[in-house]
Amino acid sequence: MPEPELGPLAAIIKPVVVSTCTTDVHLIQTMAMPTLKGKVIGHEMVGIVHEVGRDVKDFKPGDRVTAASVPPNWRSLEAQEGLSKFNTQGFYYSKDPRKGGVFAELCHVTDADMNLAHIPESVTWEQALILTDMATTAFTGIDQLNLKTGDTVVILGIGPVGLMGVCGALMKGAGRVFGVGSRQVCFDVGKKYGVTDCINYKDGNIVDQILSKNGKPVDAVFVTGGSSSSIADGMRMVKYGGTVSNVACFFEDATTVIPSDVWNHGGLDKYVKGVKAVGGRAYMERLLSLVQYGRLKPELLVTHTFHGMEKIEDAIKMMADRDPTVIKPIIYFD
Amino acid sequence: MPEPELGPLAAIIKPVVVSTCTTDVHLIQTMAMPTLKGKVIGHEMVGIVHEVGRDVKDFKPGDRVTAASVPPNWRSLEAQEGLSKFNTQGFYYSKDPRKGGVFAELCHVTDADMNLAHIPESVTWEQALILTDMATTAFTGIDQLNLKTGDTVVILGIGPVGLMGVCGALMKGAGRVFGVGSRQVCFDVGKKYGVTDCINYKDGNIVDQILSKNGKPVDAVFVTGGSSSSIADGMRMVKYGGTVSNVACFFEDATTVIPSDVWNHGGLDKYVKGVKAVGGRAYMERLLSLVQYGRLKPELLVTHTFHGMEKIEDAIKMMADRDPTVIKPIIYFD
Amino acid sequence: MPEPELGPLAAIIKPVVVSTCTTDVHLIQTMAMPTLKGKVIGHEMVGIVHEVGRDVKDFKPGDRVTAASVPPNWRSLEAQEGLSKFNTQGFYYSKDPRKGGVFAELCHVTDADMNLAHIPESVTWEQALILTDMATTAFTGIDQLNLKTGDTVVILGIGPVGLMGVCGALMKGAGRVFGVGSRQVCFDVGKKYGVTDCINYKDGNIVDQILSKNGKPVDAVFVTGGSSSSIADGMRMVKYGGTVSNVACFFEDATTVIPSDVWNHGGLDKYVKGVKAVGGRAYMERLLSLVQYGRLKPELLVTHTFHGMEKIEDAIKMMADRDPTVIKPIIYFD
Amino acid sequence: MPEPELGPLAAIIKPVVVSTCTTDVHLIQTMAMPTLKGKVIGHEMVGIVHEVGRDVKDFKPGDRVTAASVPPNWRSLEAQEGLSKFNTQGFYYSKDPRKGGVFAELCHVTDADMNLAHIPESVTWEQALILTDMATTAFTGIDQLNLKTGDTVVILGIGPVGLMGVCGALMKGAGRVFGVGSRQVCFDVGKKYGVTDCINYKDGNIVDQILSKNGKPVDAVFVTGGSSSSIADGMRMVKYGGTVSNVACFFEDATTVIPSDVWNHGGLDKYVKGVKAVGGRAYMERLLSLVQYGRLKPELLVTHTFHGMEKIEDAIKMMADRDPTVIKPIIYFD
Repeated sequence: MPEPELGPLAAIIKPVVVSTCTTDVHLIQTMAMPTLKGKVIGHEMVGIVHEVGRDVKDFKPGDRVTAASVPPNWRSLEAQEGLSKFNTQGFYYSKDPRKGGVFAELCHVTDADMNLAHIPESVTWEQALILTDMATTAFTGIDQLNLKTGDTVVILGIGPVGLMGVCGALMKGAGRVFGVGSRQVCFDVGKKYGVTDCINYKDGNIVDQILSKNGKPVDAVFVTGGSSSSIADGMRMVKYGGTVSNVACFFEDATTVIPSDVWNHGGLDKYVKGVKAVGGRAYMERLLSLVQYGRLKPELLVTHTFHGMEKIEDAIKMMADRDPTVIKPIIYFD
Repeated sequence: MPEPELGPLAAIIKPVVVSTCTTDVHLIQTMAMPTLKGKVIGHEMVGIVHEVGRDVKDFKPGDRVTAASVPPNWRSLEAQEGLSKFNTQGFYYSKDPRKGGVFAELCHVTDADMNLAHIPESVTWEQALILTDMATTAFTGIDQLNLKTGDTVVILGIGPVGLMGVCGALMKGAGRVFGVGSRQVCFDVGKKYGVTDCINYKDGNIVDQILSKNGKPVDAVFVTGGSSSSIADGMRMVKYGGTVSNVACFFEDATTVIPSDVWNHGGLDKYVKGVKAVGGRAYMERLLSLVQYGRLKPELLVTHTFHGMEKIEDAIKMMADRDPTVIKPIIYFD
Repeated sequence: MPEPELGPLAAIIKPVVVSTCTTDVHLIQTMAMPTLKGKVIGHEMVGIVHEVGRDVKDFKPGDRVTAASVPPNWRSLEAQEGLSKFNTQGFYYSKDPRKGGVFAELCHVTDADMNLAHIPESVTWEQALILTDMATTAFTGIDQLNLKTGDTVVILGIGPVGLMGVCGALMKGAGRVFGVGSRQVCFDVGKKYGVTDCINYKDGNIVDQILSKNGKPVDAVFVTGGSSSSIADGMRMVKYGGTVSNVACFFEDATTVIPSDVWNHGGLDKYVKGVKAVGGRAYMERLLSLVQYGRLKPELLVTHTFHGMEKIEDAIKMMADRDPTVIKPIIYFD
Repeated sequence: MPEPELGPLAAIIKPVVVSTCTTDVHLIQTMAMPTLKGKVIGHEMVGIVHEVGRDVKDFKPGDRVTAASVPPNWRSLEAQEGLSKFNTQGFYYSKDPRKGGVFAELCHVTDADMNLAHIPESVTWEQALILTDMATTAFTGIDQLNLKTGDTVVILGIGPVGLMGVCGALMKGAGRVFGVGSRQVCFDVGKKYGVTDCINYKDGNIVDQILSKNGKPVDAVFVTGGSSSSIADGMRMVKYGGTVSNVACFFEDATTVIPSDVWNHGGLDKYVKGVKAVGGRAYMERLLSLVQYGRLKPELLVTHTFHGMEKIEDAIKMMADRDPTVIKPIIYFD
C-alpha cells in the first residue's frame, strides 16, 4: 500500500493491536464494498500517533489513541442534526486509494481532533480495542430500545456485540436479561456480565423457550445475529409497545418479513429498528471513561491473542470457521 | 339488543350522531373479532348521557359527551406504564353480550369518569365526532414520527385519517407535506389543511415522484393505507434515521416485507412503527381544546350527512363501494 | 387509632418491618401537614396482607407485600397523563381520620390491586423496605437528569437517598461519580456502590473541590440534602446544558436563590428540577425485579435494626440527633 | 473597521438589511462584552455573499444568504454532543479585531458551509431577517417546554421573541395561548398569530389574572421578558410537572429567587430552564422552509423600515425609548 498523504487535519496512526470482525469475513466473502478494491481491510484498531497534519491541535506523535470503527464526517449537515453516523469517512470508505483499512503498518484518520481519542493511562490496549466496534455498535443498538428501569431484555445473539449489549442493557437499568446463543464460551462470559437466563437455540424454538420462562412478553429485544427471521422472532416475544432493535447485517437471506399475525396486520405498536453505530471523539471518550472508572470490563471478550501482522489471516479463518472457543481474537503487531 | 346493565362507574349514552369507518367495513367483511358476534358494531359516536352509575362523579344525565373509539381500561398495569391503549374496554370488545357497539339507541361506557369527555359549548357535534377515531388515530401515529421543526413529511394515504394526519403534522412543526392519494375530494381538503404537494399514485411510482420532487429523501412517512408494501415504499423514500409510522391494517396482503436493498440487509437506521390510537378522557379533552381554540377544523372531513339510524347501512355501503365523493359520512339518529 | 374501614378495592396490611425517614423528623418538628393531626406517622413499610376488599383481585390475606411511600390515586386525570404522583392517596394524606401512617399495628392501602406489589420469594423484607421511599425517591430524581452513557455525576448529599442515587446513576450509564458528604459510614457504602470520588464538605468549598478534581464542569448534579444553596452550588459545577435535579425539602432556609453569575443573568441553559417520587404497583414491581436479578443491593443501607414497635422513637431520635453511625434504622414489629 | 481577512472556510457578506435588538441596547448600556471593544455591534443580518474562502463549497459571490445570530463552532466536542450552541464563533465574539458585528459594510462568517444558509427565492429579505435571532431564540425556548398536543401555554412577554414564541407553540400543538404584555401593537399581532387571551400586566397581578381565567394551572410558561421575578411568576401559574423556560437576560435585577411556597421547599416537580438559541446552517434551512411552505409569517413583526446605514442609531434609540408603536425596526443599507 502507498503511504497515505497527510491533510492539515489528518493523522497517521501506527496500529499496535487490531482485531478481526465478522464484517471482515463478510467483506472478503462478498466483496460488497466498491471503494475497498485494492485496499487492505480492517476497522478495529488502537495505536500510536505517527504524524499529524499542520492544523491538528490536541494530538501529537507518540500519543496512545483509538478511534471508532466508522469515523463520521463532522463537516456535514447530518452532523449538525445529530445524525453524524450517516455521513462518514470510514477507513476504507474513502475513494482515495491511499486511505485504506487498519490492517496495515500505518493508517490514516482524516480528522484527528474530531475522531481520535486519547486512551487514559489506566486503560489497556485491549480494553480500548474492544470499544472501537463491539461497544459502539452494541451501545448504539441498546440506546434505541429506550429501556426503563427494571425492563426484561432479550439479547438475541450473544457473540461479542451481544455480550457488550448485555453490559449496555445493565447500564440502562435492565433487570432480567435473556441471552440467546449456543456456545458455552459465550454463555460463560454472559453470566459474568449479568445474563440471568441462557437460552440455547439448539434446545428448541427460542420464542417458546423465552415466553415460557418469562411468563409474559419481554420489554425489549436486541438482535445481533441469526438470520433476518430473527426480527420476526423478536416481534413474537416483545410486548405491545416494545422495540426490536437490530444491528446485524443479513447477507444470505436479507429480506425481512413481518408476518401479519405478529403485528396484527400492521396496526399494532411494535417497533422495528435497524441501527448503525455512532462514532466520534466525544463518544469514544465517554466509552473510555466507563472502563477508566470500572463500569465496563471489555477485556473479557478477548479469547485469543496473536502476535505478528501475518496472523490476521489465522484470526479471520478462526471466525469464518465459527471456532466454538472464540469470542474475539486480537492481533498485536509486534 | 338487550339494554346494557349499569355498573357503579359506568354510563349509558344515547348517541346523537355516529359515523362509519373502514374498520366497520372490514369487520363486516372478515368477521374478525369473536367478541362481536351477535352484537351491533360502531365505535365513533357523540351523544347525551342517559344514565350514570352510583359512583360516577363528573357526568350527569343530559351532558353532551364524547369518548375515544377504544376506551382504555384504566385499572391495569399497562395504564400505569403509559401503555393504556394496550388494555382496553372498547365498546364491542367486551365479552358481556349486553355491551356492544354504538350503532344502537343506547350504548355503554364502562368507566365514565375516566373515558367520557364533556364537549365544550363552542364545539359542534360533528367536530367532536371526527375526533373520536380519525384524530386520535392520526395524532397517535404522527406522534411516533418525533417530527422536528421544518421536517418534510409524506402522508401515504390522504383519506380521513391521513387528512387529520396533515393537521397533526403541522401541529408538530412540519414544513413541506406530500399527500398521496387519487381522489380529488381528498386533495381539495388536503390543500386546505396544508398539503403542499399532491401526489396521485395513478401518475406513476410514488417513490419516484416524491424523491424527484423533493430532491432528497424525506424526513418522515405516515402510512394510513395502501397495501403492506406501503411500508417498504415508505422506507424507500425516508432518510437514514427517519421513521415510517403505520396506522393501517392490511387485511388482504398482510405480510410486511422489507427488501434488503432498502435497509442495507437489516443494518441501517430506518424505523418502522405500527401504531394504535390512544384514548381516555384526558386525551379527548386535549383534542377538544384544539377545536375550541381554533387550531383544528375537523368538520371539513364530513362530506355526507344522513338522518335516521337506518341510514347507517347506506353509509357503510358508500364506503365499501369506495365512492369517489366521500371522505366521511355521518349519521344523525333523529 | 380506630381500625381502618375497608373499601371494596382496599386492603389492610399488617406491617412486619418499618423504617424511619428524615421526613418523619421534619413532620414532627414542623407539624406541617394538616391531615396528619391526631394520626400516627410513617410511610415506609413492608408487611403481610391482613384483609382485602370485595373487589380486590390479585392479593389475598397472608401475601408478602410492599407499597411505595406515596401511593398515587389511579382514578385521576393526572394518572392518564403520566403525572400520577401529583394526585396521591398517601397513607396519612387522607382526610379520613381512620387512614393513617404505617407506624401502627394495621394500616390501610386504598387501592390494593394498583398500589401493592408482591415481594418475590428471593427478596428479603429489608431489601423491599428500602425500595419504598429511598429507591423510589432517588431513582425518580436520577431519571430527571437524562444521563448519557459515561456522564460524570455529582451526588450532593450521600445519605440514604443519595446512596440509592449512586446505584440509580450507574443504572443510567454514569462514569465518574462524586459523592458529597461528611460521614465515614456513608463514604464506605458509597464506595461499595460505585462512588469514585468522596468529597467531604468540611474540607473546603465543594464547588472548588469538584471542579479542581474533574478539570471541567460535570454533566449532572443530584441534590438530596444540604440547604437551598445546594441548588446554586449545583449550578456552579454543572456544564452548560446540564441539569441539577433536587429531591430535598429545605425547611429552614427554603428560598432558592440562583445568583446571576451562575446563570448569565437568566439566559443560559442550565436546568433546575425539583422532583417528587413516583409510586404505584408497576413501578414497585420494576424495583423489586432489580433486587431479584441481583442489580441492586439496598440492604447495605441498613445500619441499625430494632425489634418492637416501641423502638420507633429511638430510631427517630437517632436520626434527629444526626448520629454519625446511622444510614438507615429499621424496626421489626415482633 | 479594517476589512476582515478571509480564511479558507470563511465568507465575507455584504449586509442588505439588518435589524436592531434589545441585546444591542443592553450591550451599549452595559458594555458587558470585552471582545466587543472597538468593534461595531449587530448580529441580525441578511445579505449577499461578497467573497468566499478557498475551501468553501456550497456558496459563491452573489448568493442571497442568512446566518443565525450566534454561529456555532462546529469543530468542537460540544457540537458532537448536540450542544453546539455552547461553543460559538459569533460575529463580535471573536478576539480577532477584524471580525466584528454586522452593522458594517462587510461582515465575516468564519465557517460558510456550516453556518450560512441560502434564502429560497420565495422568501423575502425581511422574512429571512426575522428568523436569524427572533425565531431561533423563540423556537429554542419553546422546544424546551416539551409541549403536548392541546397544552395551555403562557407567553410571558409578547415582544418580538414572544410573538415568534406564539407561532412556535402552535407548531408544537398548543391549544389555549395566553399572551402577557401591555402594548396594543403586540396584542394585535399576537391575535393574528394565535393568542387566545391577551393579558395586560397593568390590569393587575398576572398570576391572578391567568389562574382565574384558566380555572387551573397552565401546562407551560415561556418567559421572554419582565424581570427575574418573572420566573417565580411562571412557577406560580404552572402545574406540577410543568416547565418554565426562559430566554430573557435580566440585567438590572439579575438574581433569580424561587420562594419556598411555590416550590414546596424545593421538593416538587416544576422545572426551570434558561435557554440559549440554537444556530447553524441546518437549523436555518429548517426555519426558512417554514416560511417557504407558508407555515410562518415572520414579516408581521416588522413595524418600522429605515433606509441607510446611518439610521441604525434611530432604530436603536426607538427601542431604548420603548416606543409603544415598535415591535421590530429593520434597516435597509441602500
